[in-house]
Amino acid sequence: MDKSGRNEMKRRDLIGVALGVDPPDLVVRSATLVNVLSRELHPADILVKDSRIAAVLEPGGAYDRSVRVIEAEGRFAAPGFIDPHVHLESSMITVAEYARAVIPRGTTMVAADPHEIGNVLGLPGMKALFEEASAVPLRVMLRVPGRIPAVPAWMETSNGELSVADTRAMFDWPEAVCLAGDINPNLVLRQDQEQLEKFELADELGVTISGQSPGLSGRALSAFIAAGPEDSHVASSVDEIVENTRAGMRTVLALRPARRLEATHMMELARRVAEDRLDTRLFQLCTDDIHAHDLLHEGHLDHRLRALIQAGFDPVEAFQFATINVAHGLRVDRDYGSIGPGKMADIVLLDDLRAVTVSTAIIAGEIVYTDGEYRGPTGSVSYPDWTKSTIRYAKPLTAADLSLRPTRNADTATVRCITAPTGRGKKTATETELPVLDGVIVPAPERGINALAVVERHKASGEIGRGFASSLKLRRGAIACSVNHDAHNVMLLGANHEDMALAGNRLAEIGGGYVLACDGEIVAELALPIAGLMSEASIEDVASDLTALEGALNGILGADLSDKALINMNFLSLPNIPDYGFTNKGLVASDKRMQLVESVI
Amino acid sequence: MDKSGRNEMKRRDLIGVALGVDPPDLVVRSATLVNVLSRELHPADILVKDSRIAAVLEPGGAYDRSVRVIEAEGRFAAPGFIDPHVHLESSMITVAEYARAVIPRGTTMVAADPHEIGNVLGLPGMKALFEEASAVPLRVMLRVPGRIPAVPAWMETSNGELSVADTRAMFDWPEAVCLAGDINPNLVLRQDQEQLEKFELADELGVTISGQSPGLSGRALSAFIAAGPEDSHVASSVDEIVENTRAGMRTVLALRPARRLEATHMMELARRVAEDRLDTRLFQLCTDDIHAHDLLHEGHLDHRLRALIQAGFDPVEAFQFATINVAHGLRVDRDYGSIGPGKMADIVLLDDLRAVTVSTAIIAGEIVYTDGEYRGPTGSVSYPDWTKSTIRYAKPLTAADLSLRPTRNADTATVRCITAPTGRGKKTATETELPVLDGVIVPAPERGINALAVVERHKASGEIGRGFASSLKLRRGAIACSVNHDAHNVMLLGANHEDMALAGNRLAEIGGGYVLACDGEIVAELALPIAGLMSEASIEDVASDLTALEGALNGILGADLSDKALINMNFLSLPNIPDYGFTNKGLVASDKRMQLVESVI
Repeated sequence: MDKSGRNEMKRRDLIGVALGVDPPDLVVRSATLVNVLSRELHPADILVKDSRIAAVLEPGGAYDRSVRVIEAEGRFAAPGFIDPHVHLESSMITVAEYARAVIPRGTTMVAADPHEIGNVLGLPGMKALFEEASAVPLRVMLRVPGRIPAVPAWMETSNGELSVADTRAMFDWPEAVCLAGDINPNLVLRQDQEQLEKFELADELGVTISGQSPGLSGRALSAFIAAGPEDSHVASSVDEIVENTRAGMRTVLALRPARRLEATHMMELARRVAEDRLDTRLFQLCTDDIHAHDLLHEGHLDHRLRALIQAGFDPVEAFQFATINVAHGLRVDRDYGSIGPGKMADIVLLDDLRAVTVSTAIIAGEIVYTDGEYRGPTGSVSYPDWTKSTIRYAKPLTAADLSLRPTRNADTATVRCITAPTGRGKKTATETELPVLDGVIVPAPERGINALAVVERHKASGEIGRGFASSLKLRRGAIACSVNHDAHNVMLLGANHEDMALAGNRLAEIGGGYVLACDGEIVAELALPIAGLMSEASIEDVASDLTALEGALNGILGADLSDKALINMNFLSLPNIPDYGFTNKGLVASDKRMQLVESVI
Repeated sequence: MDKSGRNEMKRRDLIGVALGVDPPDLVVRSATLVNVLSRELHPADILVKDSRIAAVLEPGGAYDRSVRVIEAEGRFAAPGFIDPHVHLESSMITVAEYARAVIPRGTTMVAADPHEIGNVLGLPGMKALFEEASAVPLRVMLRVPGRIPAVPAWMETSNGELSVADTRAMFDWPEAVCLAGDINPNLVLRQDQEQLEKFELADELGVTISGQSPGLSGRALSAFIAAGPEDSHVASSVDEIVENTRAGMRTVLALRPARRLEATHMMELARRVAEDRLDTRLFQLCTDDIHAHDLLHEGHLDHRLRALIQAGFDPVEAFQFATINVAHGLRVDRDYGSIGPGKMADIVLLDDLRAVTVSTAIIAGEIVYTDGEYRGPTGSVSYPDWTKSTIRYAKPLTAADLSLRPTRNADTATVRCITAPTGRGKKTATETELPVLDGVIVPAPERGINALAVVERHKASGEIGRGFASSLKLRRGAIACSVNHDAHNVMLLGANHEDMALAGNRLAEIGGGYVLACDGEIVAELALPIAGLMSEASIEDVASDLTALEGALNGILGADLSDKALINMNFLSLPNIPDYGFTNKGLVASDKRMQLVESVI
């Protein structure tokens, strides 16, 4: 199956089927159609020929005995959900496992930006991911990465590099659908030549330019949009959403992690839509980064849809956010995002509209999931060896490698401590006093302040950014992790430097992932050998390991896991989410100035 | 100015202006923005740089004295109106005159299908029209004709011919924006190879496929849409609109001629939108064919907008039909159809929103109309000689050439009489008895039945279709006309054959247009020497001649001019509008069978 939908059957072959001269391959009979075009519910028979819908008719027609008929009386038929913005790697599982998880949730297409694996393994890594994706029934479209590395080399060390020429070449992949937007808006406002060249390339190709405008308003927002970007998935308030909408920027609602939009925001938005008749055609839904256990237990776009409906949105309108609005935004509405004659036969059947419970999923006319049975490939997938063993240090880590000395001879030192937002809000760097013991500044776990180190892991340069963080608030032990957007160096966070070194060294042995150490012992781990980001294990196994990891984090290390703290930690590093990041170069002020800041004052 | 909007200034030049570092060229200050993106009204300053909008800001900012500022406090700023479906030739004036008429009405872009001149003069004629269009400030985009000639040669004789290769070549014109849809849907349902090839070409190029599905429903509608067409401008009832919308076909509301949609339809549609929350994003407005005097006196899209608002539509939603919805439908929404950062600076200022009274029009950042003063070229335009003298008969016409003899020797004969719809509805062919005098079947003007003849005028073949019609219902005299969609042969309609021959011969002398004859004398005429379709005179002169012509038609010839009968007559010939047409081959049954039918039984 060609995921792009090109080179498939010809539309002319649908004419005879629609007219009743030729038989359909499949009929979904007497469903209640979730019509995202007219925003109505109405009964319909859906006639499918090969990969496309040939006709949508009032029920009551008779079909030949040889035609496969799905009796859908009492069920709802909706267009398959489309996620416009995901990073497959963030779920830590293979694409096969991802597909097995999301298709039963109603998702039939995702647009994926492979910049996580791209930062670690460059173009070959991204090709390996899409090679795997080509074998799954889920339509995996390519968001061509907007910038690899995410930030200039003086700010952070990455491995992959994507030139403007490479970017142009990626648009020739059959799955290419848009220019991805996980970029630093300040680079645009500062008229970074390479970034603007990529916009102009996308413009020339006529593809959508995705963006992100965290907190931009007024003149800065106008400047950003004028330069090219057409959507943003990082709005964190209703006012921001309304301002973006007025300026023509599509809002991709990212309801998780919690730092973005919460249930109260959705209730406020639903109220403004109902009261002010605000147009919602520019609203979309996405899952972006979603850990395996959340995906397994909460769901995918179905989970976000339930949240919208519970917040007060009309269900059909909410479904538009996950179907036609996405298809319009990606400029693929001619083929995807609605159920109508000529459209691709990507259809989900639901038992309950408001509960978004999917009983059958059809992609390109094939039943890929029904009644609990997933019909895609389920065997294990093996990635090539060169995608593994990507954690490269100059030498084994010691506690001394990770610690900072005070600038003055004193009992305490003033440091800048990077703080992850609780709920939404920006990352900050707050000044605080920490004790000095044996000439080393030590963390204050009793006050929620941990030591932090980011170890360069691609080029074995030995470069380590050292500082302090208030994020997981470990009371004991340490965590090591190789999932740290976007360069995915190794982050060590701990109540003491010894456990940090121990966890970091173990992490290299298992090829990346997560390791917890406490009092000189490894207490939990999750191996993610593919690029230090993904496992070849099943989603159930990865989810179970993650749950165990969170249990140990909370129970043994005394971490504060409220507010999706673990996934938030994955973004602590990233300078693209304001106002600070922490890389192997140290603390980065990522506001308009964009500069390195000393951790010790 | 490049009408396509390509190759203009770069978007990156907008960044500095938006940020306030560089000055704008123009500011529209303190307008009430008709925001078709959020469907709101709110105050705004609009900053323009060169041809684009750099920023949309809350009012209150200060601008340098050197910046040109339009004080728009108390006025509304809306995106320039876009007409997705026009035939310039039908207004019978030059493009310069058309632009002068429509820009003060708020229209800043039209998508024009030049198939009228294309049927008469082929590709060179269409090039001449767009050559003229390139000199006017109005953005004239090209709807690449969907089929020239409109119907196979056995059904009607035309002159121009557009092959699939020609069609492909026209998509390279910088103004090309979609495949035009004035095609016969029956050809699609019958899987006409050439028509389907053109759809596949447009699909491959990623451009919109326009269509028309008059009265199609159920399986036939599904088959038509599945084959490719994405919009229809010929819906004639609210049920048809709803069925089209449900199937994903955009409805282009053509409120005139009256045979399509009336005020009561719009009231019913407005009610359904309000009560059922029917999604309106697939609704657009167009003017299609509009005679010079209607354009001058009623207006253009502003007239249609007033009608929608009076019918009960929310004004901002109605404005969406003429702006963003059209831009989405033509897939040019990245540049056109809304006021936002980065968009083309096509802006109209209105004194009154509900009355749609335009006081200023800006196109590509240039003020082209303000306070009654139009700033485009107003001098007369001369078309090349080869575009004229296109009325070619084999020999001068005589009454005998135009008359029919009975099949039997009797006092009366049974004939089929083509009847134009009153109000909306299909053209019919009703059987009736007519007297036979001196061996010739004569019309019965007292019963509203005229003689009809269509004289082939391109190749001087001498071919004449002869029959009877009940359309203008002339009580005396005859009308000759060379505007007869789509082949534009000469139509003669009369109370007697002698006046028909006289009017037809005079029509050839003046190079085409309209001629009225009564009792052996020419009583009115309007010369349309360019292809027999257009005049080089001013819109005021052409409108005045048309008004005089209608006066004479009604006063001297006793015609029934209710229900826009004159423009309806232009479509009497066309077999593409069901159920009948009348060509130089005679009466054509244009339903699914598509065959010639004898006029005399």
